[in-house]
Amino acid sequence: MKESDFQTLKVDQRRMMETLHHTCSFGTGHRWGQAATETGMKRLALSDSDKKVRDWFVDTTKSLGCEITIDKMGNIFAVRPGRRQDVAPIFVGSHLDTQPTGGRYDGILGILAGVETLKVLQDANVETEYPIGVVNWTNEEGARFPMTMVSSGVWAEAISLEAAHGLKEVGGTRATLLSELKRQGYLGETPASYRATPMSAHFELHIEQGPILEMEKQKIGVVNGVQAYKWYTIEVEGRAAHTGTTPYGARADALLGAARMIAHSNKKGHELSALASTGILTLEPGSTNTIANKVSFSLDIRAPDNSTVEAMEAQLKKDFTALAGEEPVPLSVIWRTDSNSPAVKFHKDCIDIVRQSADAVLGNSSLHRDMTSGAGHDSVYTSRHCPTTMIFVPSKNGVSHHPEEWTSDEDCALGAEVLCQSVIRYDRKLAGATS
Amino acid sequence: MKESDFQTLKVDQRRMMETLHHTCSFGTGHRWGQAATETGMKRLALSDSDKKVRDWFVDTTKSLGCEITIDKMGNIFAVRPGRRQDVAPIFVGSHLDTQPTGGRYDGILGILAGVETLKVLQDANVETEYPIGVVNWTNEEGARFPMTMVSSGVWAEAISLEAAHGLKEVGGTRATLLSELKRQGYLGETPASYRATPMSAHFELHIEQGPILEMEKQKIGVVNGVQAYKWYTIEVEGRAAHTGTTPYGARADALLGAARMIAHSNKKGHELSALASTGILTLEPGSTNTIANKVSFSLDIRAPDNSTVEAMEAQLKKDFTALAGEEPVPLSVIWRTDSNSPAVKFHKDCIDIVRQSADAVLGNSSLHRDMTSGAGHDSVYTSRHCPTTMIFVPSKNGVSHHPEEWTSDEDCALGAEVLCQSVIRYDRKLAGATS
Repeated sequence: MKESDFQTLKVDQRRMMETLHHTCSFGTGHRWGQAATETGMKRLALSDSDKKVRDWFVDTTKSLGCEITIDKMGNIFAVRPGRRQDVAPIFVGSHLDTQPTGGRYDGILGILAGVETLKVLQDANVETEYPIGVVNWTNEEGARFPMTMVSSGVWAEAISLEAAHGLKEVGGTRATLLSELKRQGYLGETPASYRATPMSAHFELHIEQGPILEMEKQKIGVVNGVQAYKWYTIEVEGRAAHTGTTPYGARADALLGAARMIAHSNKKGHELSALASTGILTLEPGSTNTIANKVSFSLDIRAPDNSTVEAMEAQLKKDFTALAGEEPVPLSVIWRTDSNSPAVKFHKDCIDIVRQSADAVLGNSSLHRDMTSGAGHDSVYTSRHCPTTMIFVPSKNGVSHHPEEWTSDEDCALGAEVLCQSVIRYDRKLAGATS
Repeated sequence: MKESDFQTLKVDQRRMMETLHHTCSFGTGHRWGQAATETGMKRLALSDSDKKVRDWFVDTTKSLGCEITIDKMGNIFAVRPGRRQDVAPIFVGSHLDTQPTGGRYDGILGILAGVETLKVLQDANVETEYPIGVVNWTNEEGARFPMTMVSSGVWAEAISLEAAHGLKEVGGTRATLLSELKRQGYLGETPASYRATPMSAHFELHIEQGPILEMEKQKIGVVNGVQAYKWYTIEVEGRAAHTGTTPYGARADALLGAARMIAHSNKKGHELSALASTGILTLEPGSTNTIANKVSFSLDIRAPDNSTVEAMEAQLKKDFTALAGEEPVPLSVIWRTDSNSPAVKFHKDCIDIVRQSADAVLGNSSLHRDMTSGAGHDSVYTSRHCPTTMIFVPSKNGVSHHPEEWTSDEDCALGAEVLCQSVIRYDRKLAGATS
């Protein structure tokens, strides 16, 4: 197949979007608009609606000539044979599970664009050199079983199968990830490991989940890597006291201290070019007329490189201690590191090929840009064991993990087209290298 | 009785404290130390343990020659006859109910000092001109039935009997204040009103619940009034967004805005000499990697006079709006006023008499000081219908509403002595005025 040939391959925007919205009938969520498709999604991993969309995925890819492999994490690998069967497939991957108040694009678009790619290849009778696969990773969101990207993590041998299987459903029922895999019939025989289901590459199309492409009027983000992040819980302890009878000079007000720390972390984030955010804050005892003796808050620090995250941590540890000491009665501050995700650099070959594909599809290099992913994705784990990159499309208002998450049909199709072309170009590149 | 005579009347410290700790066997709470008396109290209004201490109070005061009146709020008025029966009694009053994690002094000391005063009068065979009473007010804490000082409020005709009777137990059972009054046998026949049980005066001995007396090494606070306070709920609304993918410039971070408002309210409080405090903060959605779209926090503003509270409110309304507008994407701010308690000025005659009694008991005017109560008490409502004041004794570390609330035996006895002398002096003053 010559380059001039495969450049004529086009995804069918209408078919892809209709199929996407069809699959969103499994686990329809909160309605926010009048149109049929104007609802969010609530399709928690291994729920009954997740089983339905999994069954749909298996049936559809089988009908497109794929062989199905299901591993012990319920990851579903659908592989369309290539000319050669002695090599690992080139995969498109993402996830079909959603947040409890999620939207119709996060993860879902990546899988649907993969299925559309299979259809494009089928319609044009294209025989690739390498097998082409689509993988649906289980429980990427971590919303039901509280570990994000857990199944690509097991595949990468970064997380143990036992720990993953033992994850308990959030909210206190007895269900575990393993019990739900069994109940839904998605506990496969194949070991969950890159050794059992190797990949020649992993491409993931995803919505940006941020406002940058939209703000800069660009269509495609060529993702060079994922920023580093560390999560902390900060515990500030003071002393409960009556708000009416305790003068300022006798107070150890844990909430006032925490408020100053949160405001300060934002200020330092601007100075050091890092993102610092607090999304959780709890306190004790929680009474209008009692000064809080204990506040616990989350701190999420992100930057494109690890050293900036470390510098922020060191600075804030110093500054929080100073702020705590400045209160009339000193507060105590304890830091706990909850997670540490170093910066990820994606593979140059994959990045180059996505950039070329974006150029070809958009016909204008000002409509795409290189960028760093702000969030983690399954591609973080696949990148440990195969060349990987991601393709971003604009998110309206940067909204994600929300029913109103939205990307236009045109932008979804442009992303799918870049994905499809990237897979074929990568196949040709490998064929050239090995032929 | 000459002044030289009644100055020799002394409370029996040991008897009073032993009796106090005996009554704390009804509703013993959290243990914090090794000694028998080193526990807190959990004696919610109209609970079984509250019934026991009420029964004890009725039996004890009856045995001291008192007549008992119980009104429709379960307030118990124990009155020792005076020479004249055509005048309203001079009352000592406070409450026997506690917080769920309360201590042994808040309220309890005031009643026990009243009972000790009756014993002192009895032992010395003192016949007062006016009847002397002790009143136990129901559900002062508002911890079980969520309205503080509700029964003195009904007595003052500031709260309707129906509203008070209808109060539901916190925590979702079906019990109401009325149903519990009936169950415990404390629904009296007498209307709950100052018209049915008038008072010539109301004196209340109470722990300070703050650190000022201790910090300034003083023994007695002569309470001139209660500071004004207003309670608000502030709702800050922004937009949920992913912490990793949303640059600062695209954020409407409700928690960051709220943190700045809380820190700012403290700064303004110092400037305007008002206490501003936040003890409750809740947020949505509450996820480490999601910027909060909604934060709700309490604001408690207090000052000795109403005008300062109003000035703080006006200033902060202006400043919070400005702070909300300064965020990259503006936040919205809504204020709701939850309660408004204007400043209370106690009666000059009562205050003068307590000051004279403190001088006499302490023999040193540097050991007492005039002060404003930071918290509300039943005396706020009695002051609407009879001359009223309060006497404060030191609280260790200013701690209250906590099992470790503590006042030394000596300080309790000094307070009781000032109370006892104040009652007798006030009786003599009235006798002089009417004889």
